[in-house]
Amino acid sequence: MKIYQTHKAPNPRRVRVFLAEKGIEMDYVEVDIAAGENLSPAMRAKNPTTKIPFLELDDGTCLGETLAICRYFEELHPENPLMGRTPLEKAQVEMWHRRIEFHFMLPIGMCFQHTTGYFKDRMTPVEEWGKESGKNAIAYFDELNEHLKESTYLVGDYFSIADIVLLCAIDFARVVQIRPSDEHSHLLAWYERVSARPSYSA
Amino acid sequence: MKIYQTHKAPNPRRVRVFLAEKGIEMDYVEVDIAAGENLSPAMRAKNPTTKIPFLELDDGTCLGETLAICRYFEELHPENPLMGRTPLEKAQVEMWHRRIEFHFMLPIGMCFQHTTGYFKDRMTPVEEWGKESGKNAIAYFDELNEHLKESTYLVGDYFSIADIVLLCAIDFARVVQIRPSDEHSHLLAWYERVSARPSYSA
Repeated sequence: MKIYQTHKAPNPRRVRVFLAEKGIEMDYVEVDIAAGENLSPAMRAKNPTTKIPFLELDDGTCLGETLAICRYFEELHPENPLMGRTPLEKAQVEMWHRRIEFHFMLPIGMCFQHTTGYFKDRMTPVEEWGKESGKNAIAYFDELNEHLKESTYLVGDYFSIADIVLLCAIDFARVVQIRPSDEHSHLLAWYERVSARPSYSA
Repeated sequence: MKIYQTHKAPNPRRVRVFLAEKGIEMDYVEVDIAAGENLSPAMRAKNPTTKIPFLELDDGTCLGETLAICRYFEELHPENPLMGRTPLEKAQVEMWHRRIEFHFMLPIGMCFQHTTGYFKDRMTPVEEWGKESGKNAIAYFDELNEHLKESTYLVGDYFSIADIVLLCAIDFARVVQIRPSDEHSHLLAWYERVSARPSYSA
């Protein structure tokens, strides 16, 4: 099996860090999304949405969506669970993962797409919405900082896929000059903890 | 335990249909989000994001996010699984669930929020973005129709939570006058199938 990805993009990194934490080796095929390599008929046949990353199994079955790929490996290899260990913890991981996606990563992505025009050949950027999204993402730092005041990771003392999505989103946010500030000391301490893990460089 | 919800909103309905399919009884507390009842200090203490629905357990633990609530019950009551039965199927359900959310339900929600001004007391609507989101949601009907040409449900012949999110999103889309048209015959046939289930009226 292999994963089609663009190394610098944030979503493939979520999968790489996830697999590194679980100790799973993977083959990667690099796809140049800026040049539109993901839009070719051959690639669309494998991956109709054209989004990366996607996983191709040895029988040709293709699976898109970052979280679906992670779910597949979590189910196949339950060791080193990153999606929770009990029903309640699994739900809490899902809750935090979605909060990070909807309140931070998605706004950062919108800010990037709508203010830089990076994908303007394949979408209609609305600059005002890009700027508003950037503001919303910045505002969320306060909530995160408050939560991490009394929590080692997003879900108590359990490192999970929710921490991975936040890590990747914070690093990606630099492309639109969005960073936590010194007043977000608990968030910055969390960042120090997660970025010190060997998976950081995956 | 009980679920705080607004009966007419689409996300609580996702949870109600999910629980109906699993045969789980639940107590509901109605929250008037239009009047801002979800924004009170007492409600924020339980549910900091202010989004509905959220689940309150008997010990006071609160769990937000529609999908996290569903995950909790899927884990506690694995009978009548709606999130997949094998590692690959679980991943495919997750993939389709996310595709429906990102390519259809989220754009419908954006169209609603940004063109109607329904929440203008608590966000900054960007009308141009609302209109663009509506167009993107409509465009996705073609992809859905093509997929459902050869698939009884979103994931083959397996009815899942992905079908539930699509059902609830299509019904909600009426508030912004977005509906599949007659040319989407496979999508309409799918709609007939899923809306004939007893859970539809949950």
